[in-house]
Amino acid sequence: MLLKEIGEFGFIKKISRGCLIRPQNILKSIGDDAAAFFMNPGDVTLVTTDLLIDRVHFLRHRTTGFNLGYKSLSVNLSDIAAMGGIAREAFVSIAIPGDCEIDYLDMVYRGMKTLASEFGVNILGGDTTSSKADLVINITVIGSVSEKEMLCRNGAQHGDTILLTGFLGDSQAGLHLLSENTPETSKGLEGLINAHILPKPFLKEGQFLARQRCVHAAIDISDGLGSDLGHIIKQSNVGARIYHKKIPVSKNLAKFCTHFHLDPFNYAFTGGEDYILLCTVPSDKAKRLDKDYRKRFNQPLYAIGEITDSGKIELVQANGQIREVEPSGWNHFKTVEKTE
Amino acid sequence: MLLKEIGEFGFIKKISRGCLIRPQNILKSIGDDAAAFFMNPGDVTLVTTDLLIDRVHFLRHRTTGFNLGYKSLSVNLSDIAAMGGIAREAFVSIAIPGDCEIDYLDMVYRGMKTLASEFGVNILGGDTTSSKADLVINITVIGSVSEKEMLCRNGAQHGDTILLTGFLGDSQAGLHLLSENTPETSKGLEGLINAHILPKPFLKEGQFLARQRCVHAAIDISDGLGSDLGHIIKQSNVGARIYHKKIPVSKNLAKFCTHFHLDPFNYAFTGGEDYILLCTVPSDKAKRLDKDYRKRFNQPLYAIGEITDSGKIELVQANGQIREVEPSGWNHFKTVEKTE
Repeated sequence: MLLKEIGEFGFIKKISRGCLIRPQNILKSIGDDAAAFFMNPGDVTLVTTDLLIDRVHFLRHRTTGFNLGYKSLSVNLSDIAAMGGIAREAFVSIAIPGDCEIDYLDMVYRGMKTLASEFGVNILGGDTTSSKADLVINITVIGSVSEKEMLCRNGAQHGDTILLTGFLGDSQAGLHLLSENTPETSKGLEGLINAHILPKPFLKEGQFLARQRCVHAAIDISDGLGSDLGHIIKQSNVGARIYHKKIPVSKNLAKFCTHFHLDPFNYAFTGGEDYILLCTVPSDKAKRLDKDYRKRFNQPLYAIGEITDSGKIELVQANGQIREVEPSGWNHFKTVEKTE
Repeated sequence: MLLKEIGEFGFIKKISRGCLIRPQNILKSIGDDAAAFFMNPGDVTLVTTDLLIDRVHFLRHRTTGFNLGYKSLSVNLSDIAAMGGIAREAFVSIAIPGDCEIDYLDMVYRGMKTLASEFGVNILGGDTTSSKADLVINITVIGSVSEKEMLCRNGAQHGDTILLTGFLGDSQAGLHLLSENTPETSKGLEGLINAHILPKPFLKEGQFLARQRCVHAAIDISDGLGSDLGHIIKQSNVGARIYHKKIPVSKNLAKFCTHFHLDPFNYAFTGGEDYILLCTVPSDKAKRLDKDYRKRFNQPLYAIGEITDSGKIELVQANGQIREVEPSGWNHFKTVEKTE
């Protein structure tokens, strides 16, 4: 079935089902000029938006609709997670080329709804239109967090310990496997591919970190450790020293790198799209935080280095030598374009 | 200068200037994972989003950047106006093809900022990315309105008078002139072209109507009178009767239609993109409302008919005969595509 067969309003009706998960305090969702709802008084409202385009962020003909929808929403929820917020309402704009099947679009929304449902997020509205060339998806997510708990990029302080909530580089290695399209080498490495196509937002972890009141700064790793840590040090007016041997690398990535004779550090440092959280905390509170975090999530926090006053990122290499590293990472206009 | 020369962050820095117009209560704008700000307790938060794509909603090579930016924001503000709300924060996502000049993009943002500044709207964040083919703009606007004043589509009641805040059809006639590209016929008809390229959102008018507490339903005319009145009658479970001779037609449109031997009603009924407001009020309050409105805006409200219980839109033609009309209008997937 093609979209032109059911028309715009038919399509909206079709996608509306299952969108309202938490109807309390919602006055208007899909169907009016704008969505309307109450926010809790005293709360900070968080808004994030991401635009994803065929042939730039994904390859429509090589990505399932479900995975595309899931990841499109996940990258937005990850931004709310990085602020320590609760994700509340999502707004989805989509531009659809003439040859795009309804079934595919249906799966796009099913991917979104699956994730939205898991985190209690409403898809409250959006826009649908046609496109002459590429499939385009823009998602805006509104969240909230109490003022005193909000995690920002600009609070890192000299002496802070730098912590990560998970492994780095898996997503980039997964992309590598998908691009090479070699099923035999992928065997046993499905975890890497999943890290790339179905990244989980660390919302509950972000909220936990925010509630502890000891985190000075936080960001999600979307562009790569170098780039995102670069944002922290620039906005906090500090520096950072990280240790090659402390970078958390999954067993899957280690296996993958052995197979391809690659250095996992390169994937971890520049890869991006891992969507784990990076935060900085006073060094005397890092251990206690790690302990509480393990108790809550049954996972450790990985300490990878400390905040300095150098104004740059220094890497302590395996041999003990210190090297200054450029905060390189994903840049939409300067580098070769990335596709899934 | 091309975008690749200054890079993504250079571009963001460039467009950030002048975006924060009302900094009170803003905790985070461009530069963090999400924007963060306080909403007034008790207020309803309104959110609207519009996705605009080259060759569908506009023709980049035939539209100035300023006009494109201005209109992209205006259509969103119009949705907030239709709810009686105050527009507060805007979020702009933009996907940029490789051959797009910085100067053009700069003018796009200048157009947005000009309008944003007029209505006290912050551009608080967004996303920038590359595009393989078309320029894409997605804008999300967050507004607020008190619960008791909010204007919705579903409140129209049998017996209500249907009122418009301005002329219909000018925008569509302007598009016609632009498409024909005949400067000599456009002479003296610049008002029509302006109605199409620089539509004003009726924000102050919407807020005024909301405060009167007598408006039962409202919508902005984006898809055409037929289509948008169709939304009102469907969601309110009523019907409508409108009068051919009461449809407000500007002198410019009358002149244009005489020149081209066209019926202004067709432009008014199906044209769309006028972004005036349509509202329904109890018939015994329509006169008083019109009087107060004139006093405030020095403009009349145009009564074009009444709400019925017929479940359909009836048109009383010039000869007095009643004809049922289909709520036709702009549909992104069913009709020939519209371009500026």
